[in-house]
Amino acid sequence: MISNFYPIIPAGGGGTRLWPLSRKSSPKFLYDLTGSGRSLLQSTVDRLLGLVPSKNILIITGQDHIKSVTRQLPELPSDSIIDELTPKDSMAAIGLTAAILHERHGDVVFGSFAADHVIENRDNEKFYKCVEKAVKIANDGYIATIGICPTDPTGAFGYIEKGGQIFDGISSVKQFVEKPSEQNAKKYFESGSYLWNAGIFVAKTSVLLNALKIQKPELYDGIIKIANAWDTPKQLIVQNKIWDKLEKVAIDYAIAEPVSKKGMMAVVEGDFSWTDVGDWDAIASLIEKSGKLKNLTEGKNVVLGDSEFVHNIQADGNIIFNSQEKLIVLLGVEGLAVIDSGDAVLVTRRDIAQKVKVIVPHLQDEDLDKYI
Amino acid sequence: MISNFYPIIPAGGGGTRLWPLSRKSSPKFLYDLTGSGRSLLQSTVDRLLGLVPSKNILIITGQDHIKSVTRQLPELPSDSIIDELTPKDSMAAIGLTAAILHERHGDVVFGSFAADHVIENRDNEKFYKCVEKAVKIANDGYIATIGICPTDPTGAFGYIEKGGQIFDGISSVKQFVEKPSEQNAKKYFESGSYLWNAGIFVAKTSVLLNALKIQKPELYDGIIKIANAWDTPKQLIVQNKIWDKLEKVAIDYAIAEPVSKKGMMAVVEGDFSWTDVGDWDAIASLIEKSGKLKNLTEGKNVVLGDSEFVHNIQADGNIIFNSQEKLIVLLGVEGLAVIDSGDAVLVTRRDIAQKVKVIVPHLQDEDLDKYI
Repeated sequence: MISNFYPIIPAGGGGTRLWPLSRKSSPKFLYDLTGSGRSLLQSTVDRLLGLVPSKNILIITGQDHIKSVTRQLPELPSDSIIDELTPKDSMAAIGLTAAILHERHGDVVFGSFAADHVIENRDNEKFYKCVEKAVKIANDGYIATIGICPTDPTGAFGYIEKGGQIFDGISSVKQFVEKPSEQNAKKYFESGSYLWNAGIFVAKTSVLLNALKIQKPELYDGIIKIANAWDTPKQLIVQNKIWDKLEKVAIDYAIAEPVSKKGMMAVVEGDFSWTDVGDWDAIASLIEKSGKLKNLTEGKNVVLGDSEFVHNIQADGNIIFNSQEKLIVLLGVEGLAVIDSGDAVLVTRRDIAQKVKVIVPHLQDEDLDKYI
Repeated sequence: MISNFYPIIPAGGGGTRLWPLSRKSSPKFLYDLTGSGRSLLQSTVDRLLGLVPSKNILIITGQDHIKSVTRQLPELPSDSIIDELTPKDSMAAIGLTAAILHERHGDVVFGSFAADHVIENRDNEKFYKCVEKAVKIANDGYIATIGICPTDPTGAFGYIEKGGQIFDGISSVKQFVEKPSEQNAKKYFESGSYLWNAGIFVAKTSVLLNALKIQKPELYDGIIKIANAWDTPKQLIVQNKIWDKLEKVAIDYAIAEPVSKKGMMAVVEGDFSWTDVGDWDAIASLIEKSGKLKNLTEGKNVVLGDSEFVHNIQADGNIIFNSQEKLIVLLGVEGLAVIDSGDAVLVTRRDIAQKVKVIVPHLQDEDLDKYI
């Protein structure tokens, strides 16, 4: 346990590469994509409950997801779930949550963790140690992140270049790098100076709000006004008046990059398994690696959802998601992803799973908005 | 038109290679598998209506299918649809129907045609000419069949070896051959003396019943008793009493083979396109060949059922059946069959479509009888 620490979880939308399961109306964090029996959001909360009591955790999510999130997390007090009204990207969401914490508890350390990333349970202790380090360096006035030690030269994630060492396993951040080309990813991987960007931010609320005041003064003003009204009868009136006018910007651009240039971003080296389960192949690989037998049928097919009704005959290396009590039979096929979301079925190849993101724009062009 | 000719259509079950669409409760003849807008059974009737008035056509089908058949064929008089109570294979079904015709009309020529075979409409005239020839030779006392001139050396059909010529395009039958090995199929194809067995039988009712009396006297007795009671108030009582005890045997073994040995089977050479649409690949090939544009999307995917809701993206040469208003997306896959029957989804490869028949026994083993 870490005392006086407040984890926050921005649970936004997204995940078009996990269509047809992940939708605008039901994003991927609401689903069990690892065969654990818990959704990605629930698993994230479960993990953080090893560090703090449930009352310390805040979740900020879209209006469409408030009910689902509340239903999935009955252990959280009702004022722990913050409605972001409309999507305003990560800076407004994290900024408001930090400001609310500052109002409620004074100057405390918070940590922002994605709702839809996976860390294997057996690595929880390693994760906790990293968070402890991040909290420590945050108490020294840094904005900290945790970068994951890369295990392969993938171009699927952003990277963080390490600067000078601050403590053992903690460096300053030299720069943040967007998802690189295959060539650059290889260079980064081999250099040993780069870590994967897992989108984790740990800081004192005062430090974050101060940085925001310097970088985005208007956004800061708006957020402070809303936070001042929070937990009062005027909360919703003020949020409704101001929220929609706030700048839509990612915390990476608004704060992390400029602060790193001033040498005040620190990165803790994360030595735990981590993935953003970005596409169906990533999910399949995760389960294959973890060897979760109940989700691996004969022929090493990964089966999620109503797995009882999925039958693989002479089929190998496929991933199948069955979202309802419906029979799915795969016969003599290999390396496919077959995803049945109830109202839609996707059949594609695991090796091109990244391409699934083209489907949502395609459906928009075809006026099939209800499937987006 | 052929006067005094009575086509009969045994519409039994079967079609496990077309699972999950074709089921015990809804066999393939009830579906539009060619994109014509008519089921296989309806297409069969449509074709025969070019030869005879609707009142001449009899259909014998299982108790489970009476309603579906009646609904699909409102043009047939109600006494044209015969209930076979329980499946007793083709000899009992065809024998009873022939005996009913004999009771109703005296000694007439009937022709038995499968409910689930496909002949392209543009070949209807060729088909009619062959039936005319078969009726003519049947009037001479032969039991006639129509054998299809093979277009490739497939092992998917049975073959008929021609004997001596009777008239131009009509020979005696030397022997019937079961589905041959690849090697034998090639030999048959190259010899020019073999035709595909399309399961068509044309004979005078007296000739068929007499052959049955000689080959299977008990079966004959039973059938005659039922036929005598037919169209009387005792019809159902007598059928109920006798039907279940009748021998279950195919007409091929009971009559065609022994009669051919006596030189009294004749085969008319059928020069029309024909297929038994035995599996998903056969159906796809049929539509690809016929070039039915409304069933061929870009990338030459064959789409049946609710085709409006099937989207192929960078996908080629697949067949998709969508039995309900549900979105099916294929992305970057080739040569697959994706069949959604509503309660079940099959994903397999077209090149192993014959293997689909293993699924029904598999489901039986798994106690999933409701999907059979």
